[in-house]
Amino acid sequence: MEKFFSYLQSLEAELVEFRRDLHMYPEVSHEEVETPRKIAAYLEKLGLEVRTGVGGRGVLGILHGGQPGRTVALRADFDALPIQDEKDVDYKSRVDGVMHACGHDVHTSALLGAAKVLSQFKDEVPGTIVFVHQFGEEMTPGGAKPMIDDGCLDGVDVIYSAHVMSNLPVGQFGVRAGYISSAQDDFTIEVHGKGGHGAMPHMTVDALVTGSQLVTNLQQIVSRRVSPMDSAAVTVGSFHSGEGHNVIPEKAVLKGTVRTYSAEARDMIEQALHNITKMTCEAAGAGYEIDYVRDCPSMYNDPLETERIRQLGVEVFGEDHTVEAEPLMGSEDFAYFQEEVPGVYFILGGGNPEVGADYPHHHPMFNVDERAIGNIARMMLTAVMK
Amino acid sequence: MEKFFSYLQSLEAELVEFRRDLHMYPEVSHEEVETPRKIAAYLEKLGLEVRTGVGGRGVLGILHGGQPGRTVALRADFDALPIQDEKDVDYKSRVDGVMHACGHDVHTSALLGAAKVLSQFKDEVPGTIVFVHQFGEEMTPGGAKPMIDDGCLDGVDVIYSAHVMSNLPVGQFGVRAGYISSAQDDFTIEVHGKGGHGAMPHMTVDALVTGSQLVTNLQQIVSRRVSPMDSAAVTVGSFHSGEGHNVIPEKAVLKGTVRTYSAEARDMIEQALHNITKMTCEAAGAGYEIDYVRDCPSMYNDPLETERIRQLGVEVFGEDHTVEAEPLMGSEDFAYFQEEVPGVYFILGGGNPEVGADYPHHHPMFNVDERAIGNIARMMLTAVMK
Amino acid sequence: MEKFFSYLQSLEAELVEFRRDLHMYPEVSHEEVETPRKIAAYLEKLGLEVRTGVGGRGVLGILHGGQPGRTVALRADFDALPIQDEKDVDYKSRVDGVMHACGHDVHTSALLGAAKVLSQFKDEVPGTIVFVHQFGEEMTPGGAKPMIDDGCLDGVDVIYSAHVMSNLPVGQFGVRAGYISSAQDDFTIEVHGKGGHGAMPHMTVDALVTGSQLVTNLQQIVSRRVSPMDSAAVTVGSFHSGEGHNVIPEKAVLKGTVRTYSAEARDMIEQALHNITKMTCEAAGAGYEIDYVRDCPSMYNDPLETERIRQLGVEVFGEDHTVEAEPLMGSEDFAYFQEEVPGVYFILGGGNPEVGADYPHHHPMFNVDERAIGNIARMMLTAVMK
Amino acid sequence: MEKFFSYLQSLEAELVEFRRDLHMYPEVSHEEVETPRKIAAYLEKLGLEVRTGVGGRGVLGILHGGQPGRTVALRADFDALPIQDEKDVDYKSRVDGVMHACGHDVHTSALLGAAKVLSQFKDEVPGTIVFVHQFGEEMTPGGAKPMIDDGCLDGVDVIYSAHVMSNLPVGQFGVRAGYISSAQDDFTIEVHGKGGHGAMPHMTVDALVTGSQLVTNLQQIVSRRVSPMDSAAVTVGSFHSGEGHNVIPEKAVLKGTVRTYSAEARDMIEQALHNITKMTCEAAGAGYEIDYVRDCPSMYNDPLETERIRQLGVEVFGEDHTVEAEPLMGSEDFAYFQEEVPGVYFILGGGNPEVGADYPHHHPMFNVDERAIGNIARMMLTAVMK
Repeated sequence: MEKFFSYLQSLEAELVEFRRDLHMYPEVSHEEVETPRKIAAYLEKLGLEVRTGVGGRGVLGILHGGQPGRTVALRADFDALPIQDEKDVDYKSRVDGVMHACGHDVHTSALLGAAKVLSQFKDEVPGTIVFVHQFGEEMTPGGAKPMIDDGCLDGVDVIYSAHVMSNLPVGQFGVRAGYISSAQDDFTIEVHGKGGHGAMPHMTVDALVTGSQLVTNLQQIVSRRVSPMDSAAVTVGSFHSGEGHNVIPEKAVLKGTVRTYSAEARDMIEQALHNITKMTCEAAGAGYEIDYVRDCPSMYNDPLETERIRQLGVEVFGEDHTVEAEPLMGSEDFAYFQEEVPGVYFILGGGNPEVGADYPHHHPMFNVDERAIGNIARMMLTAVMK
Repeated sequence: MEKFFSYLQSLEAELVEFRRDLHMYPEVSHEEVETPRKIAAYLEKLGLEVRTGVGGRGVLGILHGGQPGRTVALRADFDALPIQDEKDVDYKSRVDGVMHACGHDVHTSALLGAAKVLSQFKDEVPGTIVFVHQFGEEMTPGGAKPMIDDGCLDGVDVIYSAHVMSNLPVGQFGVRAGYISSAQDDFTIEVHGKGGHGAMPHMTVDALVTGSQLVTNLQQIVSRRVSPMDSAAVTVGSFHSGEGHNVIPEKAVLKGTVRTYSAEARDMIEQALHNITKMTCEAAGAGYEIDYVRDCPSMYNDPLETERIRQLGVEVFGEDHTVEAEPLMGSEDFAYFQEEVPGVYFILGGGNPEVGADYPHHHPMFNVDERAIGNIARMMLTAVMK
Repeated sequence: MEKFFSYLQSLEAELVEFRRDLHMYPEVSHEEVETPRKIAAYLEKLGLEVRTGVGGRGVLGILHGGQPGRTVALRADFDALPIQDEKDVDYKSRVDGVMHACGHDVHTSALLGAAKVLSQFKDEVPGTIVFVHQFGEEMTPGGAKPMIDDGCLDGVDVIYSAHVMSNLPVGQFGVRAGYISSAQDDFTIEVHGKGGHGAMPHMTVDALVTGSQLVTNLQQIVSRRVSPMDSAAVTVGSFHSGEGHNVIPEKAVLKGTVRTYSAEARDMIEQALHNITKMTCEAAGAGYEIDYVRDCPSMYNDPLETERIRQLGVEVFGEDHTVEAEPLMGSEDFAYFQEEVPGVYFILGGGNPEVGADYPHHHPMFNVDERAIGNIARMMLTAVMK
Repeated sequence: MEKFFSYLQSLEAELVEFRRDLHMYPEVSHEEVETPRKIAAYLEKLGLEVRTGVGGRGVLGILHGGQPGRTVALRADFDALPIQDEKDVDYKSRVDGVMHACGHDVHTSALLGAAKVLSQFKDEVPGTIVFVHQFGEEMTPGGAKPMIDDGCLDGVDVIYSAHVMSNLPVGQFGVRAGYISSAQDDFTIEVHGKGGHGAMPHMTVDALVTGSQLVTNLQQIVSRRVSPMDSAAVTVGSFHSGEGHNVIPEKAVLKGTVRTYSAEARDMIEQALHNITKMTCEAAGAGYEIDYVRDCPSMYNDPLETERIRQLGVEVFGEDHTVEAEPLMGSEDFAYFQEEVPGVYFILGGGNPEVGADYPHHHPMFNVDERAIGNIARMMLTAVMK
């Protein structure tokens, strides 16, 4: 790997420049135009087979290695966020109210660096490498699904994706086997009763009591219907009903979230939530409305591939710089790729207070240590070559 | 009233004899043959208009008074119980396993006494008096309803009935306005889930949790659906589900009772209980069966008539011997009469340890002080004449 | 009663004038100065024994009748409300933002009329008549309790009070036996949990679920702990917890009301509500705060006295103008008097669209037909004399 | 491995004979005398360092290999069950009512076979091998804990144990990573209320409603207090309260089981169950008793060691004969060893209808195909040598 890494080293300035250009001209999800154009141009210059407009705005670069081997996809996302950049650096965003506040510019630059290195030593590369540059990761629905529908995983055996983390020191690497993010679905339930005087409950349909009963009944989904070997959370995050002491309210509004790992639990819970709501309300004589919104599925890091990546991480960064990554609380549409083929999503440190890289993701002051570009590229190269 | 009472006094031996005859030859509910025959014979001898076979086995005696007035019904029940008489008296039951263990023999004899007195002073009697001798009070369904359907209350303005009580000292009188017994309906609910291993709840439909949820949900019937001005009790008296620690049971059996006063609450609760059971079970994916049995309605003592009777009771027995009667826990099909016309059900003491009259009703040793016959008759006479 | 009524008739203009004077110069609860002064002056002119400052701002007039009899109290309240008078009449309120919007001016004037008539025929009046002019009825705590503490009921055998009603046509009279208003207590419960991420319930104490459980548990107070022969309502009128879908809230706020008739149920429920709240919260590991405010007790119209008054009402106004009054939803501190002595609270119609008397109580356009003054006075006179 | 396996092959008759001897003279848990004596004798003959009476009745054999390496423990249990042997074979149990109905005779014989082979090629064996012959596996408390306390794992790096399975065909091998059995704790809760008439709930403390509330409340343990990344089941397996329809029962008895994987969840649930029971009962005014019995912890197959064993299993038995083992429903005190050092518990097929080996474990007809002895020994040898 030595020559791969030293050639990569020589590209450092070029990759930083590319990243800073993206950083100055960020484009929000589903409005990316120049970003995919720049990526496609870079890949074409490397002589790769390039597809643009994949699933809408995605870009694919395909490299046929000189050695036999499997088809490996490497994925980076490239969209930015509707956040005002408040950093004081010369490559600060030139676009008002838009900013690369999650490091996708770094991901993109690192993946292009890996593509350039692999192109340089093409004959030694085993199998086929598919560079998947994804648009629209930050929004629901995101770009992953349409890109898959448009064939970006055709023939792919395994897929890797990296995320830079400002809360992990630069130089560190982390990964975790199994489920690393939950599927997140949100719901809003309105219970429609019949209001009335607090002293005359028999003339009403008490939406507040019905809503409370519903919250209580929903506990049985996780306690009785999810396999103890599986995992899920059904949380009602807010409950609002009525105004004062003496009037029985006619309406209760419950908002909540459902977090699951397995697809079975996810489907079961959606169905159970509808059923329990319907029956609890009808038992009380109340009506109801449910708005149930499915966000993306859970990410599942294939255990064997993850173990392989973890061992490679140790080789590249050392045991002391390798951590067990925490599961993510939010959602990430890389999950869709992992539904199709075994995949690993790993993280690389970008944190460094000395260069101002100590703000959380999605913060107006967010930044990362740019050495993360090289580190991501090194892991991608290693994942492909070993 | 003096002459009425002294003539009644002179009948004492005759009435006791009549009562003891009934006592020796008791007939259980819906199998009364000789009892109504004896009653009819007695009434006919008084020269009254007599109807037999009323609603099946009932007897009516009608006396047209010489004075203008309303039509007053006086009711006594005449059936016995399937209980073995274990008293040691010479008028002990001659019928094996059958016994007048609730005092209906006393009621009958007293009412015949009143009929004889009123016949004697017929010209002074206001309005029309209907002597309602009812069969089958101790069973469900009882004789009240078919007797009403057969016209026993036609033209009747008000109805009175007395019950002798072994737990009230002889010589005492009691009455209470408003609801004095609740309607009693019983239910049995079977929850049909799907059993399984205690560590695998997701493969089951947990009948035990569903049954528990159902008990909890049923609380809302009384707390939210019965008017605070009305009254009701919904009690689950038994809950049985499962065998040991580790197996999720497939069935839960709940038995309970519903006590109500108003007809509205009664109908509402039956419907709500069905609905809540259905919805709670269906929310859990369980099936169910409900067996809901209606017994007789609540007895309602008309407030104005009750006040009148109470004041008359004070006149006859004295303030010191008049009590506020406790509501009855059981059911009494006099309630059906009170659904049709204003009515008052009052009690007269029959307790006296010195004559062995200190056993509860329905006890093999039950008996009453026979002075209760005269006391009941005196109240009936007073109720008619004043 | 004829001469009583015709003398009353002759006072009509004087009483209307007195009422209009009060109406023009209303004084809100606990700030009454001129009103009690005017009342005391009127009573003194009648030659009655007068006490002022009773319990603070109350006025008592005592008339010793020439005949033997019991001591009867007649009560009228005299405070006004902080409402802007928007009627267009020449006796409209002269005080900005203050108004007799509940008819207490009418009550006062009627009671003074009755006092004047009874004084006129003093020798024929049985027993002693205590005219109880009460301050501060519209606020909690009101004037009834301190007046009682100050001896206004000493020696009193029975008390009557009337309320004019704009929703009952003038000339009509209504009364109801037994409980006619419930005791009203209000509570606010804060459940203090520990907030957190919706996907990590185990790191939190879920205040929303605990609050829901509490609402569910509170249902058992009425369903299991209040006697089916008694009545009560425990209503949670509002429930607020959390903001959105994904965050487990740290706090839930429940507001509610408790309505009871018997003192036993009232005490039991306050205690049970505290206990259930404490245990439900502690079971979940949550803290709590309860603010429980007792308002006044239930009004209980003594059945025998009520029947007497109802029959007198029929005599005065006719069967066709006598109605069964509906129970009141709100509270009325006449209840305190009824805790001490038998009492009857009855209503008299004041509604008449032709004179603009068709607005609800406490409305800026509220008014009543002034013939109600004479009607109230007539009932008071009858209640005393018969 | 070839010579290891062929030497093992040559021992087949000896090992079958040893197994049949144990089978004829089974000893129930905690009463093993001859069995450990025979084992110790066998091991001593091999020239191993032998400890007897370990933790009570356990036997240790220690082999110091000629090559450097880690210390590996191999465990087999040797107790029998109080079951009457009903098989028709000549090595049928000679002890009335006692039987090797779970295959521990096979485990023991196989482990002795492995010990003999490894002793034969001692110089080639890496590290130290500790043969752990455990008593009392079938009872709670079992022999594992006292043997650990007595030092049987001192210096041990990893431990393996095999179980023959009659429901897996002979020749098949199975293993599973992570938790493969749950910790099992059982509880019995008695709710002590105050019984009474079904129409008078206010005079009672309703144990049935309180028990139902408790079942409902217990659902929140899993739904809100167990981490969604962890797993648990809290099952109430039986609920018994009351006799008929009309009487409010004074007692409810709930029996249930708690299944957990992590020690944190296990401790938390025990504490939460006590707390929720206490608070739910006290909120209702009821008393309670809890009997909570902890059985053994969950078995956790170390993921890396398991992956290693799985791959070795594939080498020995072939991909087609390797299965993903199902988690166990019951408990197994090998869990205690796995709490101390990384361990793997794997299964080997013993099923073969042709030799009558098709009855479930703990069945009077239970038997296994004796080729399982060799298969277990081969896996043990491979686990040690590779």
